[in-house]
Amino acid sequence: MPSSNSIRDHAGQGATTVAAHRARRRLRADQARQLADLLRHQLLAGGFPDGTLPHETALATDYRASRNTVRQALDLLRAEGLVDRLPGVGTVVVAQKYPHGLDRLMGLAETLREHGRVTNEVRTMGPAPAPAPVAERLHVQPGTDVLYIERLRRLNGLPLSLDLTYIPLDIGTALLGADLENTDVFRLLETITGKRLGHAEITLEAVNADTHSAAVLQAPHGAAVLMLERLTHLSDGRPVDLEFIRFRGDRITMSGLLHRSL
Amino acid sequence: MPSSNSIRDHAGQGATTVAAHRARRRLRADQARQLADLLRHQLLAGGFPDGTLPHETALATDYRASRNTVRQALDLLRAEGLVDRLPGVGTVVVAQKYPHGLDRLMGLAETLREHGRVTNEVRTMGPAPAPAPVAERLHVQPGTDVLYIERLRRLNGLPLSLDLTYIPLDIGTALLGADLENTDVFRLLETITGKRLGHAEITLEAVNADTHSAAVLQAPHGAAVLMLERLTHLSDGRPVDLEFIRFRGDRITMSGLLHRSL
Repeated sequence: MPSSNSIRDHAGQGATTVAAHRARRRLRADQARQLADLLRHQLLAGGFPDGTLPHETALATDYRASRNTVRQALDLLRAEGLVDRLPGVGTVVVAQKYPHGLDRLMGLAETLREHGRVTNEVRTMGPAPAPAPVAERLHVQPGTDVLYIERLRRLNGLPLSLDLTYIPLDIGTALLGADLENTDVFRLLETITGKRLGHAEITLEAVNADTHSAAVLQAPHGAAVLMLERLTHLSDGRPVDLEFIRFRGDRITMSGLLHRSL
Repeated sequence: MPSSNSIRDHAGQGATTVAAHRARRRLRADQARQLADLLRHQLLAGGFPDGTLPHETALATDYRASRNTVRQALDLLRAEGLVDRLPGVGTVVVAQKYPHGLDRLMGLAETLREHGRVTNEVRTMGPAPAPAPVAERLHVQPGTDVLYIERLRRLNGLPLSLDLTYIPLDIGTALLGADLENTDVFRLLETITGKRLGHAEITLEAVNADTHSAAVLQAPHGAAVLMLERLTHLSDGRPVDLEFIRFRGDRITMSGLLHRSL
């Protein structure tokens, strides 16, 4: 096939060249995404233990990709805040995502125990009348006071999540004097009620953080957050804890096992 | 407490007033987020069956919030693309999120069956040498050809997800002639192998879509996507399907049950 660099020479031929150029760009973007996904997995799985990614040339060979594709893939990971380029060093891992278990109902401190210390900044706490949708889910009369808690949760000092929590007041009152700064609400609920938690209905979404939530989480404007809505029941079935949790997308992953048959 | 409107009169008093004003703004933003989360739940749970939210005054009464807080909460939902304001009508629901089951391993068409028809645009399909991290997870030799498939998946014509899929070639070859446009890979895998799928290891993340992925998904630049990485095994344990899936955050939720004890 004859090649053509002469966009100016001939309108039809020029259009073809522009189209071919666009197609190449699209293809490279597709390939960069494909490579970025593989590298992201390696990165999250601790596949670069010394914190440095292989040189671009090595990546190009390993993944049978062009240098340009490799660079573009690394740019994608950099835009996600996972890696950075250091002159003279190469591409280094700058962020870690922590795995939140999806298989068992666990509090944040429990699930992240091996990764460090979870502390909670209580931004708001107090009784407030339950709006209808809260009352309905917690099985209390609408307008009855429930305990409302708002916490910014940190792992080793870094903001991880912003949690809004509603708890029936007969249980919630005992939480008012508890060490919420250092203890999961789950553990406190089990201590207060003397019962184990049973199950929770959860819903996960990805949303762009609004300006105010992003500021609280110290995340960039519009940052992707993993939103978790969770209604937790005691082992006797009573709903006791309704939560709306915004996890920073760049700091948390949720992992679990699914089975084909129940 | 005496009120002060005189920021200009007295520097100290002015600073106090500015601080008080900031505190009020922060408080209102917190309350707006709290209200928005409750309305979002209602909205996703089909709590507004006629597609219209109650009037701002009614919401203010129901949720004991100020009109300004209600407006700000509705602005948050509007920014997420869930509602819109129509002059003379009020606030209407403009987007639906579809619930993807998290309790059982299911293909997209299976899990969304009651919501409409899933179609798949195959963007790329063909054998390609398996990079090391793919080979390792699919239990094939690195560099061995695997089938690579890239699909844009739609529900009732609307883009839902962009899926990158790797399948061992001994199974993948039979997929080349299959009706991928209208059939879940899961179903095809079970037909081809004559075996049921067993389990899958999944990881969920929230990420901001890169420019190219956003364009393919017809989502705004930087839109939050729910990223699902899934390694699916046959019932005999063999890994047969490695996928990297980007769901549009504004179209999909993942719901399931968690238990405290396994």
